[in-house]
Amino acid sequence: MKGAAHARSEREPGVEVSGGAAFAPGLEGVVATRTRLSMVDGAAGRLVIAGFPVEELAGRASFEETLYLLWNGVLPDAGRLEGLRGDLAARRALPEAAGEVLEAAVAGGAAPIDALRMAAGTLAPSGNDRDDALTSVAAFPTIVAACWRLSQGREPVEPDPGLSHAANYLYMLSGEVPGEERVRALETYLNTVSDHGMNASTFAARVISSTGSDLISAVVGAIGALKGPLHGGAPGPALDVVFEIGEPGRAEGVLRERLDRGERLMGFGHRVYKVRDPRADVLAGAAERLYASDADEELYRLALEVERTALRLLEEYKPGRNLDTNVEFYTALLLHGLGLPTGLFTPTFAVGRVAGWTAHCLEQRETGRLIRPQSEYVGPEARKWVPLEER
Amino acid sequence: MKGAAHARSEREPGVEVSGGAAFAPGLEGVVATRTRLSMVDGAAGRLVIAGFPVEELAGRASFEETLYLLWNGVLPDAGRLEGLRGDLAARRALPEAAGEVLEAAVAGGAAPIDALRMAAGTLAPSGNDRDDALTSVAAFPTIVAACWRLSQGREPVEPDPGLSHAANYLYMLSGEVPGEERVRALETYLNTVSDHGMNASTFAARVISSTGSDLISAVVGAIGALKGPLHGGAPGPALDVVFEIGEPGRAEGVLRERLDRGERLMGFGHRVYKVRDPRADVLAGAAERLYASDADEELYRLALEVERTALRLLEEYKPGRNLDTNVEFYTALLLHGLGLPTGLFTPTFAVGRVAGWTAHCLEQRETGRLIRPQSEYVGPEARKWVPLEER
Repeated sequence: MKGAAHARSEREPGVEVSGGAAFAPGLEGVVATRTRLSMVDGAAGRLVIAGFPVEELAGRASFEETLYLLWNGVLPDAGRLEGLRGDLAARRALPEAAGEVLEAAVAGGAAPIDALRMAAGTLAPSGNDRDDALTSVAAFPTIVAACWRLSQGREPVEPDPGLSHAANYLYMLSGEVPGEERVRALETYLNTVSDHGMNASTFAARVISSTGSDLISAVVGAIGALKGPLHGGAPGPALDVVFEIGEPGRAEGVLRERLDRGERLMGFGHRVYKVRDPRADVLAGAAERLYASDADEELYRLALEVERTALRLLEEYKPGRNLDTNVEFYTALLLHGLGLPTGLFTPTFAVGRVAGWTAHCLEQRETGRLIRPQSEYVGPEARKWVPLEER
Repeated sequence: MKGAAHARSEREPGVEVSGGAAFAPGLEGVVATRTRLSMVDGAAGRLVIAGFPVEELAGRASFEETLYLLWNGVLPDAGRLEGLRGDLAARRALPEAAGEVLEAAVAGGAAPIDALRMAAGTLAPSGNDRDDALTSVAAFPTIVAACWRLSQGREPVEPDPGLSHAANYLYMLSGEVPGEERVRALETYLNTVSDHGMNASTFAARVISSTGSDLISAVVGAIGALKGPLHGGAPGPALDVVFEIGEPGRAEGVLRERLDRGERLMGFGHRVYKVRDPRADVLAGAAERLYASDADEELYRLALEVERTALRLLEEYKPGRNLDTNVEFYTALLLHGLGLPTGLFTPTFAVGRVAGWTAHCLEQRETGRLIRPQSEYVGPEARKWVPLEER
């Protein structure tokens, strides 16, 4: 009796409200769900991903291993890993409509994250959650890379099924098969952002998924939420000050000028958290190895000089605040070293986070429970109709 | 300092969880937001839309008036109403990419609600909330009508800017300018579903909007949530039994057979609510007037006979349960009378509900507050990495 169930589930909230529910603005302080996927302990500076501290996992696992871990709760053996790689590689090509949407989006000047949402939205739900999860994860790099190439006036590069997920992403961006250090650096980044508790995009995905809707719909909603400036987690232009400084000798002057004007320094410190983000060291190490192997070592030395100077000046200008380099700084350094323009940082964040989105949808599905809080009505209740001519 | 704010907002939940938050599965019993848009009181059988009891508003307001009311809190005067009509009419045409997506979706056999999500996703955010709200509301009927015509192998009908929102929807579906009674019937339906408290799709829209993302992203997420079978509110195939019965004399036999098999009768009763849905009478009256004027009166008489027989038999088979005709039955009767196939019922629900979605996004924007609950981690915390060859 689907019809009756529909009407019923939509009528419930009113009753519950009249039974006296608690107002929790922004749902702060409310636990909406239990999860085995990740734990964020900001006070202690800990991030656990499916049982692994992020520093144990991120620098070692391939992206496919992290994905398998999130979807299945265990690391894959060789056979299962090969199976997942093949399943993903087979789903990299985009439907024709996605290509047309991307061309129109780029021609219309859409932001890459909007283009990703538009094109991901054209992926057809299959009726099977695992298939839809594979399709989403596999298609994201193809979409982002094609969007980038089109925006540069270049032809998109066809995916290479012989390459790993991360290697193929870099290949589709540049047209060149990347070296091992570059792939390792990207995988480390993607792993660090693969899941991060109940952030707003993951929550949006679970809300949509909780209605029994398909995973493509959920992931598209999540991309929409990720776009918002209050979302958090997406790397911003933390390196801009480094580019502006340009050479080590100018670091102190430029930074002092900003601090004298009362500006905050992007890439350093948090208002609330004093402990170091557990992802920062993992990414700092990955960036160091990347730049040592095949990126712009001069930029790396400049960035380190800016970092050192900034930390010294912050201690001088804001003593006792213990403002540390934040995860944004190392993320930007690493992604820049991989040749990604700032405009692709947020879409690349999505390339990693879609692992968590899909895992949360699969987990949500197991509960079979709708996520739907209530609202409290604070308007009038008995207005009378006034005809147009009397208004 | 956008970057630092990002990292901060994503790190908060862990801290709050460790501070001891309450687990509210599915967020039941939690009020996420205050609203002036609608109040659902299922126990008393009341629905208030922006201050008006639904029975006061739905049969009188044009859809544009309801939309203005939801967006602005007051009914428009003649000048403002004309302005809104013009703004909507000017935004009815679809971007080219939307047409291509629709053709591909229809060719691939996508459900109309998926096609609506895909095509709505190609609307470009403008950077202005009100513009995006207008664009969404204006484009929905064009998308749904084009999808329907394409699925019938017919050319879409260009929108007519001289027609009202509802009249133009019927015109684009059939190619014929509808009579006044048909427009009034559709507007009454669209008004009844224009908003309905904190349902799951509206909540998804508010979550996405709360990140500061654009309204197109929010509305696309809401369509995804609306698709889910647990969402509620979307009219289902409540008339199927009427079609199966075919003639009044067969009603009792067919219904007894179903009840003897222990089946529930779609279109009748709710498990939890004994009072009548306030929308039911509004829609019953609108359906009666519609069928009296220019729809299939024979079907209407048949439907009423099936209803009478079902209510009598339900009292016999389930005495004391007071199972009443539900809103689904009258909705299906009304939409069928308007010539809409069952496959368009849910997309047409979206054509009405997008008024509420956009209004909630605008209201959410005023709060400036992120909606993000927490999760409680229930997995292991200190797994050690095991190399692939040892798994």
